[in-house]
Amino acid sequence: MPAEQVARGGARSLETRHAIMAAAERLYAEQGIAGVSNRQISEAAGQGNVAAVGYHFGSKVDLVRAITAHHSAAAELIRQDMLDRIADPEDVRAWVECLVRPVPEYLAGLDSPSWYARFSSQLMTDPVLRAVLTDDALNRRPLAAVLRGLGPLLGHVPAEVRRARAQMATHLIGHTCAEHEERVARGEAPPASWRATATLLTDAVSGMFAAPSTPTPKECPA
Amino acid sequence: MPAEQVARGGARSLETRHAIMAAAERLYAEQGIAGVSNRQISEAAGQGNVAAVGYHFGSKVDLVRAITAHHSAAAELIRQDMLDRIADPEDVRAWVECLVRPVPEYLAGLDSPSWYARFSSQLMTDPVLRAVLTDDALNRRPLAAVLRGLGPLLGHVPAEVRRARAQMATHLIGHTCAEHEERVARGEAPPASWRATATLLTDAVSGMFAAPSTPTPKECPA
Repeated sequence: MPAEQVARGGARSLETRHAIMAAAERLYAEQGIAGVSNRQISEAAGQGNVAAVGYHFGSKVDLVRAITAHHSAAAELIRQDMLDRIADPEDVRAWVECLVRPVPEYLAGLDSPSWYARFSSQLMTDPVLRAVLTDDALNRRPLAAVLRGLGPLLGHVPAEVRRARAQMATHLIGHTCAEHEERVARGEAPPASWRATATLLTDAVSGMFAAPSTPTPKECPA
Repeated sequence: MPAEQVARGGARSLETRHAIMAAAERLYAEQGIAGVSNRQISEAAGQGNVAAVGYHFGSKVDLVRAITAHHSAAAELIRQDMLDRIADPEDVRAWVECLVRPVPEYLAGLDSPSWYARFSSQLMTDPVLRAVLTDDALNRRPLAAVLRGLGPLLGHVPAEVRRARAQMATHLIGHTCAEHEERVARGEAPPASWRATATLLTDAVSGMFAAPSTPTPKECPA
């Protein structure tokens, strides 16, 4: 086969993969990962072959992994840029903004309505698919940087409580953005309101991180 | 058919329903609602007929609704009791405890390991199944009571921000309890540590509710 023809075939295959990823993301966001079959995704992606998902991606987990990888790198670039520009490393709110803002800012930059927030919030609660998010090293490195930055500023909070609150913050950010995305999709909020959601989240997460921690009595095992 | 025989048949049917609900809750918690078929549930419930879920419940949504109804009334009784016993209605933390504690307290009282927190946290993020939680009036009445109690104490926070934070609190409570339940199931946390998780959540939610709210400039539509 001439090289040109092979290249054209590769491009077509890439196009098909992207069509499947876009259809899956939208259907999962709107109908739930539990409620959508690979056959429905293949049909929505305009594939004559209802086994196209299996052919191009293997399992549902592989498809979910491909969609996640497509988005996470871009959001992390925004975060790294914010981390590089922190002016006052003593400012708790500046670190919290590095945790919060990249997510709504990235979502605001997608075509509206976006689907990724509703898609990924489902991954966060699925015991199997969640591994796709936690395996993604890109997702964890900047979170670690934020925790290192916040640590010395929150000395009144034990390290294990700070870690638990960082985990809570990822839930707050992910699920609140998913709910906001749904309001934008339903026309109940203008796309520009992502900025207000970022502020709402930054206030809430700052308050949570700074809150005093009640010691657990030794008689009650932690 | 003699009445006694009808009654026995009814009891057997109830037993079968409970066996299916228990099997579904466990499989959903461990493998994800997206990853478990009705056939797997019927088999795990010891039903010879692989269509038993459909026969006894109708759709997956009906099964999910039955499991949720089984749990939510009991947790709300704990909450109502706490609301009735609030000694100082000026105490923010007392209201927040009414929001937080009934969930870990109810879970701590189930046989260990429990499955309900991991099951219901998946419902919270599924665009279709979520309706099962929000339709459940029992789930909403005490939340409204807590918001009414907190309102006058958090006058520095606009009402719409208070509402948004109450919604964030339900995510924090649901997802943090699900993660704790998983640690208990893996043997990484003792069952008694539910009490520490309740304290961790009460501190975090109190800090979030009390946090100052940054006004959104009028130029940026909210």
